[in-house]
Order: sequence, then C-alpha cells, then structure tokens
Amino acid sequence: MRILVNLILFSLIPLAFSNENSSSYLIARPLIFETQLKNINDNVNLHCTSWRFAAETNNLAPWKTIPAECADYVKDYLMGEGYVVDVERVSEEAKVYASSFESNGDGKDIWIFDIDETLLSNLPYYMEHGCGLEVFDHSKFDMWVEKGIAPAIAPSLKLYQKVIHLGYKVILLTGRRENHRVITVENLRNAGFHNWDKLILRSLDDRNKTATMYKSEKREEMVKEGYRIRGNSGDQWSDLLGSAMSERSFKLPNPMYYIP
Amino acid sequence: MRILVNLILFSLIPLAFSNENSSSYLIARPLIFETQLKNINDNVNLHCTSWRFAAETNNLAPWKTIPAECADYVKDYLMGEGYVVDVERVSEEAKVYASSFESNGDGKDIWIFDIDETLLSNLPYYMEHGCGLEVFDHSKFDMWVEKGIAPAIAPSLKLYQKVIHLGYKVILLTGRRENHRVITVENLRNAGFHNWDKLILRSLDDRNKTATMYKSEKREEMVKEGYRIRGNSGDQWSDLLGSAMSERSFKLPNPMYYIP
Repeated sequence: MRILVNLILFSLIPLAFSNENSSSYLIARPLIFETQLKNINDNVNLHCTSWRFAAETNNLAPWKTIPAECADYVKDYLMGEGYVVDVERVSEEAKVYASSFESNGDGKDIWIFDIDETLLSNLPYYMEHGCGLEVFDHSKFDMWVEKGIAPAIAPSLKLYQKVIHLGYKVILLTGRRENHRVITVENLRNAGFHNWDKLILRSLDDRNKTATMYKSEKREEMVKEGYRIRGNSGDQWSDLLGSAMSERSFKLPNPMYYIP
Repeated sequence: MRILVNLILFSLIPLAFSNENSSSYLIARPLIFETQLKNINDNVNLHCTSWRFAAETNNLAPWKTIPAECADYVKDYLMGEGYVVDVERVSEEAKVYASSFESNGDGKDIWIFDIDETLLSNLPYYMEHGCGLEVFDHSKFDMWVEKGIAPAIAPSLKLYQKVIHLGYKVILLTGRRENHRVITVENLRNAGFHNWDKLILRSLDDRNKTATMYKSEKREEMVKEGYRIRGNSGDQWSDLLGSAMSERSFKLPNPMYYIP
C-alpha cells in the first residue's frame, strides 16, 4: 500500500510542477497531494477496519491470509497503540467479570486460557512472516515454538494473576501438541505464568479434529467432572464456541490468522 | 467531543496570538493547533474504535449506553461510510456461504433473520435519541415501531432475496412482541420483504426470558421439526448464541444498544 501511495504521489509531481509560470501554484499544489493522499489513506483505513471487524466477529470464517492491501494496516495496528488498547480492554472487562463471583471455596470454579496470542505473543515470529500475509507454515512456526522465547501479553498476565488470586482454578487449553509440552511449560514459566491447575495439549488422538471439536470435548470433560467454566479467554472463536461453552467468553484480538 | 475539541482549540487561540511582534508566528502557530487537534481526534478514534470492537465481539456484555465521549464517533460511523461498508460485507460473506450449499429440495434448509437492525433499520429513531447515548426507552421505541416506517437495510434485503432464490426457507425470529405483528408485517412488506415462511414474535409466555433463552428455545423447536439451520443473521449476539446454534452465524454491526 505504501508503495502504491508513493507511486501515485510521485506520478502527480510532474503534473503539478510542469509549465509553472507563477510561484502561487507552488503553494497551492502540495495541498492537492495531501488531500489525495489523505483520501487514499482514509479509503484503505475504512476498508481494512471493516475487514478487521468482519474477521473479529467471525463473519469471514474461514480465511487463510489477510488482504494484501491491508498488510501495512495490520502491521500498524499490531505495532501501534491499537492492539495494546484492545488487549488491555479485554483484560479489564474480564477482571471486572471475574471479580463479580463470590467463590464458595469448593475449587470448582475454573477459568480457561488459550496460549498463543492469548497468554504468549508470537508477534516476533509473525513480524518476520508478513503478519498474516503469508499462508501459515507449520514447520517454520514449530521452529519458533521450540525456541521457547515467546513473550507474555502483559495485560493477559495481569488477568491470569488476578483470577488465580480470586481462587479460580486455571486450565490452559492449547492447540499446541504434546511433543511441545516441555518447551511450552518452560516458556510459560519464563514469561511469568505459574500455578496453573492443568495444561492440556493436543494428543495424537486429537490430530484430525478441528480446534472447535477438540476444545469442546475437553470442556465437556471438565463439566462432567463437576467444574463450572466461569470464564474463557482466547483469540480464536474456535477457543470459545462449540459445546460446554463458558458462562462468559473473552475474545482477544487477532487479525493475523484464523483457526477453524 | 466536538465541544471539547472546540473548547481546547479556542482556548489556545489567545496564547498563540498574544504579544505577537513578528508575522512569522502567525504562519507557524496554526500548525500547532492542527497537530493538537489531530492528536485529540486520533485518541478519541483509537479509544472509540477499541470500544466498538469490544462491543461487537461481545466482550463488553452487558452494557446500557455508549461512552459519552464516543457519541460523535458512533454517529459519524452510522451516518458515514463505515456502517454501510460493514453491513455490505456481512451480506456479501453470507451470500457466498449461502450459495455453497447444494439444496436437496426437501425444504428443510432454513435461514433465520432477526428484524431490528438486521432487516429493518431504526436509525431514524435512534438519530433522534442519541444513537445509544440515551438509556433504551420501551414506550418511546414502541411508538416508533407502531408507525411502521422503518426502512430496509439494503444489503440485508439483497441477502434475503438471494437466500429465498436459493431455496432456503426464511424464518423471521424477532424480539418484537405479538401485539406488533400486524404493523411489523406491514412494515416488512412496504420495505420489500416478502415470502418468509414464518414470523415468530415474543408471546406473553416469553416475556421474562432473555433474548438468548427465547431465541434458543425457538431454534430448538425448529431442529426438533427436522429443519437444518444453515444460516442466522442478527445484530445481537443474543440472536446467534445459545443452543441449537446455526451452522454459520452472521453478526451485523450495532454500536447503539445491547440486548441480553
């Protein structure tokens, strides 16, 4: 997009400054550029905000890559204030809700957290891989996971600590596979996450299930064991929808990828 | 917000033009105003876009009114291109999905539509009542409904016609009450909606149920009768979540009000 904008901008310069006899034009013309540039940016912004709304409300499902023209928009959102403000808001709303329950002390109130883009951020990886512009590459992503250096999403860490402090049991329910258990535990601990009750990863039996099926089955087991799923935090609708849904679900933003 | 911006702007003017000895200041200072104005507008935009995403992804539930500082933002969104672009996108995505089924001709494939802010627009009413800034007033809104002049949401009308053309049975499932059946039918027909299979309104028995409960029960009945709920369009999550959920749900934008 920036390239397009620059191309349009530079293609207009000769038009603006050719056959100039009066210096008065030199004052007026840059305003025309600025207006045109602003209109182009406004249109991209309108279009990509609309796309993001559709992605975040699950209207687009399924989708594989972000629109090419929204590449800069998504990067700017993730690296600028937009993403931080959104993630902080989800965390604050979840804290208010979590605090509204009076625990009866039977240890049956649980909060489920997804891991990737919910507790841990893979932004360092995705910044190197187009932030959703490239089709997801399992083996490349696995190499990143195996480094075990994904940083905490700070507002999620605060929520995590809050729900543990309030007496909820924390269940981590992730699409990561069992063979990544050790590195995942190490990464989580180094990022500040401790005292979870259970870490559930995909076993070989879960291999061919969608995330919605796999996570629904695991939630059903929790309900059968007598747990009350009070809250569920995830960046994918497949973390939140399906059967045995939580009493309240909290959708973290993720404009980079979609998991069915 | 506009009042705030204007106040800040005007409060800065005396500072800028006091004790001016050189005309060079007169050129430089307006840029300062513009930058400050832009920063204020950017912050409001960031904050209110974040609020809107939290509302649209159901993270805020429940909420009663929009934040006061977002009043102009929401109005601008609804009256500008933002809302139109979003509604068109939902309609287009739903059309693509609806077309992906091969009907087997048994008449059991259905599409559910909510009415208010899904097929019919109450914007003329809400523009007179703060677009979400005022707490919802049942009796005032009823008076508007009884006029029967709510216009069609054009992209939803296109989707509606498309799904009927594709052979789906259309069920209208609304939170409006039975005593508004006649005016609702008249309004829908005048707005271009015809050939629905069933119009379900709230009976007296449904009075004390949340929309989620009431609509879930009605969907359960449809499933028991052997229908396959292929698609469901609504502007509220209470149109879409609960039991007997549709295979795909389409969330239309509504930053004005929340129904549990």
